[in-house]
Amino acid sequence: MGPVPDADQRWMAMALGLGARGLGRVWPNPAVGCVIVRDGRVVGRGWTQRGGRPHAETEALAQAGDDARGATAYVTLEPCAHHGQTPPCASALVAAGVARVVTALTDPDPRVAGGGHEILRVAGVEVTTGVLEDKARQANDGFLRRVTEGRPHLTLKLATSLDGRIATATGESQWITGPAARRAVHAMRARHDAVLVGAGTARADDPSLTVRGLGVSWQPVRIVASRHLDIPTDGALFREIDAAPVWLCHGPDAAADRQERWRTRGARLISVPSSRSRQIDVATMFRELGTAGLTRVFCEGGGSLAASLLAAGVVDELVTFTAGLALGAEGQPGLGAMGIDRLADAPRFRLDKLTTVGPDVLAVWRPVSADRSGGAG
Amino acid sequence: MGPVPDADQRWMAMALGLGARGLGRVWPNPAVGCVIVRDGRVVGRGWTQRGGRPHAETEALAQAGDDARGATAYVTLEPCAHHGQTPPCASALVAAGVARVVTALTDPDPRVAGGGHEILRVAGVEVTTGVLEDKARQANDGFLRRVTEGRPHLTLKLATSLDGRIATATGESQWITGPAARRAVHAMRARHDAVLVGAGTARADDPSLTVRGLGVSWQPVRIVASRHLDIPTDGALFREIDAAPVWLCHGPDAAADRQERWRTRGARLISVPSSRSRQIDVATMFRELGTAGLTRVFCEGGGSLAASLLAAGVVDELVTFTAGLALGAEGQPGLGAMGIDRLADAPRFRLDKLTTVGPDVLAVWRPVSADRSGGAG
Repeated sequence: MGPVPDADQRWMAMALGLGARGLGRVWPNPAVGCVIVRDGRVVGRGWTQRGGRPHAETEALAQAGDDARGATAYVTLEPCAHHGQTPPCASALVAAGVARVVTALTDPDPRVAGGGHEILRVAGVEVTTGVLEDKARQANDGFLRRVTEGRPHLTLKLATSLDGRIATATGESQWITGPAARRAVHAMRARHDAVLVGAGTARADDPSLTVRGLGVSWQPVRIVASRHLDIPTDGALFREIDAAPVWLCHGPDAAADRQERWRTRGARLISVPSSRSRQIDVATMFRELGTAGLTRVFCEGGGSLAASLLAAGVVDELVTFTAGLALGAEGQPGLGAMGIDRLADAPRFRLDKLTTVGPDVLAVWRPVSADRSGGAG
Repeated sequence: MGPVPDADQRWMAMALGLGARGLGRVWPNPAVGCVIVRDGRVVGRGWTQRGGRPHAETEALAQAGDDARGATAYVTLEPCAHHGQTPPCASALVAAGVARVVTALTDPDPRVAGGGHEILRVAGVEVTTGVLEDKARQANDGFLRRVTEGRPHLTLKLATSLDGRIATATGESQWITGPAARRAVHAMRARHDAVLVGAGTARADDPSLTVRGLGVSWQPVRIVASRHLDIPTDGALFREIDAAPVWLCHGPDAAADRQERWRTRGARLISVPSSRSRQIDVATMFRELGTAGLTRVFCEGGGSLAASLLAAGVVDELVTFTAGLALGAEGQPGLGAMGIDRLADAPRFRLDKLTTVGPDVLAVWRPVSADRSGGAG
């Protein structure tokens, strides 16, 4: 039994739950949650709205009205301090007469970076920071990583047989996991800004990569990484381009006529240098995607792209679905070649969550820092 | 919430727990547990002793002494009815004055097969059968399968990376899973009558296959399946042959001088026909092991033998340990070639248990009956 959480932690947990509702539809902004509490009672709740505005605080203050006076506001991220289309949230909290503001994180965005907390303190509002900071950091990993490292958070999904296979030798892959796991994948897509696959998967599976069956009204961007742009122009992505944006990350040597066909159709083309291997350089690709505003990317394979992402060290969350069947060594591997000879060189992950989804096993893994040397940076 | 178990179920669960203590050291006999209860109090407990005798009832009755009179005996398997070195347990329960006997299973052994229950009923003892039958059937699968199908229960262990690999391309395999998983494997060895590996594993890993670090005083039989007996005679198994019995299952074409070397050293040689593939016929091998008295076999690979066992449909329990690292497609697969082109032909398993062992994931899977045709046999 851990320690009993205090009231601040309980309200912040509620705010984090609200903030998570915005995941996948507020980029390039953070998905923030806000709870306003007065006399132990919630008087306002809010979360970042689709497209990033209004902010969570604006929503919660509107709900609270006069009840905000003397209340405590729990916000998962430092309130903004910069004037945009609207006055900064820190000033709005002051104007509403909030007596105390509790936050989980300081916003690393250089336009905020402590300035929101400062506005509040100067105005005489009591400020408590760092409540449930670790949880908030994990929940906002996409936004934080884009601001601090210039690249989005990457979740890599692997759905395999017991022995790590994603298809038989003849390519039959539908379905290895069950309907419940496939529904869970659609829910995961909806919580990311973009879904990414490699060219091989785009050719073999002709996926639409949209969120279906969940009644959600938004769609993630659909990205294909294909050095030569050798993906069919009679497939689902090309035909149904209006269903959701299509972005194509290609090498500089992709044929101009192919680029033109996709551009004319409405796709966004992102040129990325090629690495020494056959693929485009995935680390550079991820910086380009960060520059384009993405905070959370969900990669669904194939094995070759997945292996490149793992080798490049850009996988922040690894989601494995394991189905109860055995396919044997002729089956297609979920991870392609990684060039690892020694166990010490293998990317390592720690288990974060373990559960069942229908008949399948769902595990969530997070990377173990590769820096075990202890040397100076 | 399931239904609250009644008293019979609770005492039978205790008896099953006691019976499990005998697993791995009572073959060819069943591992039975017995609890004698009088006025709601346990007056005797027993389980099958090493080598199969004394029986659980004998132990429990000796503990109960005069308190057995008028008591209820909970026994996980029908008491024996045949005279061996000692009088049958059914008669001993009658002689001790037990008023009621509750069992989980009828013993399929033709020398018992209801005869034990009959002796009790004829003597005026109240008999209740089938309490926690499913649990008892699972716990006694090894004994039941040997008696009814002539082959032992087979547990197949797979300890792999996230992507189903058991070694790097260069063969480095120590260690993929952590110390806690390796301890769990030793405990699993101890609960089986024999540990089985293929020749490739015997050559590559030079394993001793003994139970270590648990303070147990018995060892499982060590079996290597090797068509050509091409396993080193300077390895751990040959050198340390006194640590535990070594059985070698070989093809009819194994060189006579190799057979002779091992036989002279003290190994037991079991000749098994070869299948059309490169290996010996594993279904026949398992019947031979059943004839030799084994009830529970624990296979630890390698990938080629594991694939053959799965393809032959003799895997009754699949134990997977999954470690948080990725090795990529050059890594050695945990399962070898299985010749499966269609997903419908893949052996399927349902999840029975899911937990963590140290940093690794442990899942226990049981086969889903392949007979979904509904056709007549």
